[in-house]
Amino acid sequence: MATIKAAILGFGTVGQGIYHILNEKREELRAKLGLELEVAKILVRDTTKERVPGTAHLLTDSIDDCLSVKGIQVVFEAIVNEEPAFGYLKKAVENKCHVVTANKVMFAKRGLELQELARQNGVFVGYEATTAGGVPVIKTMKNILLVNDVSRIQGVLNGTTNYILTKMRAEGWSFEDALKEAQVLGYAEADPYNDISGQDAFKKLMILSSLAFGDQPNWADVEVIGIDSISAEQVSDSIEKGLRYRHVAEVEKYPDGSLYAKVAPMLVDKEHPLYPIDDVFNAVTMETNYIGTLTLVGPGAGMYPTASVMVEDYAEIIGKRAGFVVTI
Amino acid sequence: MATIKAAILGFGTVGQGIYHILNEKREELRAKLGLELEVAKILVRDTTKERVPGTAHLLTDSIDDCLSVKGIQVVFEAIVNEEPAFGYLKKAVENKCHVVTANKVMFAKRGLELQELARQNGVFVGYEATTAGGVPVIKTMKNILLVNDVSRIQGVLNGTTNYILTKMRAEGWSFEDALKEAQVLGYAEADPYNDISGQDAFKKLMILSSLAFGDQPNWADVEVIGIDSISAEQVSDSIEKGLRYRHVAEVEKYPDGSLYAKVAPMLVDKEHPLYPIDDVFNAVTMETNYIGTLTLVGPGAGMYPTASVMVEDYAEIIGKRAGFVVTI
Repeated sequence: MATIKAAILGFGTVGQGIYHILNEKREELRAKLGLELEVAKILVRDTTKERVPGTAHLLTDSIDDCLSVKGIQVVFEAIVNEEPAFGYLKKAVENKCHVVTANKVMFAKRGLELQELARQNGVFVGYEATTAGGVPVIKTMKNILLVNDVSRIQGVLNGTTNYILTKMRAEGWSFEDALKEAQVLGYAEADPYNDISGQDAFKKLMILSSLAFGDQPNWADVEVIGIDSISAEQVSDSIEKGLRYRHVAEVEKYPDGSLYAKVAPMLVDKEHPLYPIDDVFNAVTMETNYIGTLTLVGPGAGMYPTASVMVEDYAEIIGKRAGFVVTI
Repeated sequence: MATIKAAILGFGTVGQGIYHILNEKREELRAKLGLELEVAKILVRDTTKERVPGTAHLLTDSIDDCLSVKGIQVVFEAIVNEEPAFGYLKKAVENKCHVVTANKVMFAKRGLELQELARQNGVFVGYEATTAGGVPVIKTMKNILLVNDVSRIQGVLNGTTNYILTKMRAEGWSFEDALKEAQVLGYAEADPYNDISGQDAFKKLMILSSLAFGDQPNWADVEVIGIDSISAEQVSDSIEKGLRYRHVAEVEKYPDGSLYAKVAPMLVDKEHPLYPIDDVFNAVTMETNYIGTLTLVGPGAGMYPTASVMVEDYAEIIGKRAGFVVTI
């Protein structure tokens, strides 16, 4: 049976999740895809630290080392920040590797460029994991766009802030306590600025904007308000009124073709689709011309949801290349 | 440019919707797929009735007439009931045509058989439109199943009953008035038995069961309770308690591998994901091992939502055949 070799760039929560799923699903993926997948290299900064038993011999700190593996065809990328991630993926694509990324900061800014580069090199870019964790919003929107136009996207795109807002309301916790618990649970980074400030949701929104409209609004024009502007008093006031705070990101295409985007806290009542979306759940609503309004809800964070959609991206890419189709 | 010829079987609401979308999107589909699609025949019972201006010359009442068109490669089927639909599609598949169907009664019973036949003939079966109207639950689940196992599916799968329950609650209408309005709006058939009794939701549930589990429970073992069992008194009682009736279909795979399914009215409180799903909206929740719980919400009925996902099926099939990929 043919073997496809892959490298994993970055071996934190998501990178390890990919490794675990590929191991657990080895037989099933082989049966479904007719191919063996082998993780041949894992790129880390510190090669002396074995994070998962049995992987020491795979660790390297050199991207060239990863890409020079004979038969390498797929690169999973789960690093944070734009560089060196973009440079790595550019090299991978030029090396005729398909890439699957979870890197929203890089992809929000360089996604269209990376996809164009991939097109020129005849390879694919999977980026489902960049936006809304385990919620398959990218694939769903791509499919819908085959026939429909999307006019507006609205969503809760950051699991950490939704978790914090949920705990402040439902448990009466302070912002600080809720944040601390989110960090303990691994939802929030040690530096929670990107989540709290809305910058993380903003990046995801820009990725959705590129997909739906082929373009993004001017970043400097987008108002981004974080959840740190919400006081405990405002939360208790909202409870009394039967309302809930959600941190909502939205982008809209106006009839004149211009794009308008915003990220800000919003009060919703019990008739609003976002009302029951608690904890780390994400939700994305798309307004389309033929189908109407479509909403997807699911876990917006976590090792397995995110890693799982990356392996799905891989399976989809392989399926396309080999003409493979799921028939069930 | 290459031209793909298609036939539409059945020219009611959905069949006409397909015809309209294919016309409206002609340029865009040509640009995206690199192919021209031509509707070459439309199968109807009464060829003297021109339902859409300019289509009289396309009408025929003979399936053989449709399949003998030179270059015919796709058949859209929007007929009701098992036969003659299954017989037509069997012929189409044996004639090496891809088929796209909206026929849930036929597909619930003969779907696995039709797909096996298609596999043998090297063609595809698109059936997104059989279940939950414009909500892309079939594609989403197929994708998820590449990596995840699904253990349980729960949903509101019939737009008509959800519309009736919504109007009884929100407008205080009687069951009869709500049903009449649903018929006026084209949601309910002249004979509303299939919707009201839960049989329509049951068929869709069986299609989801086949997809998720490769099997269906014994139909005779499934309890199917319609919404006609709900009295006006029960509705007003539920309002007082802050609860809402939803008509819920669910199927679950037990650890021993056996399948359990049920269709019945259910009372949900405001924390339940189905609480805000009003009017003709459908919702489907899937429990999976890696991603967790994923929910899709959208319009469960209507000409354009249903026809739109059928044209998406076509675009997806053509994309697969031609190695075409959306790169946006």
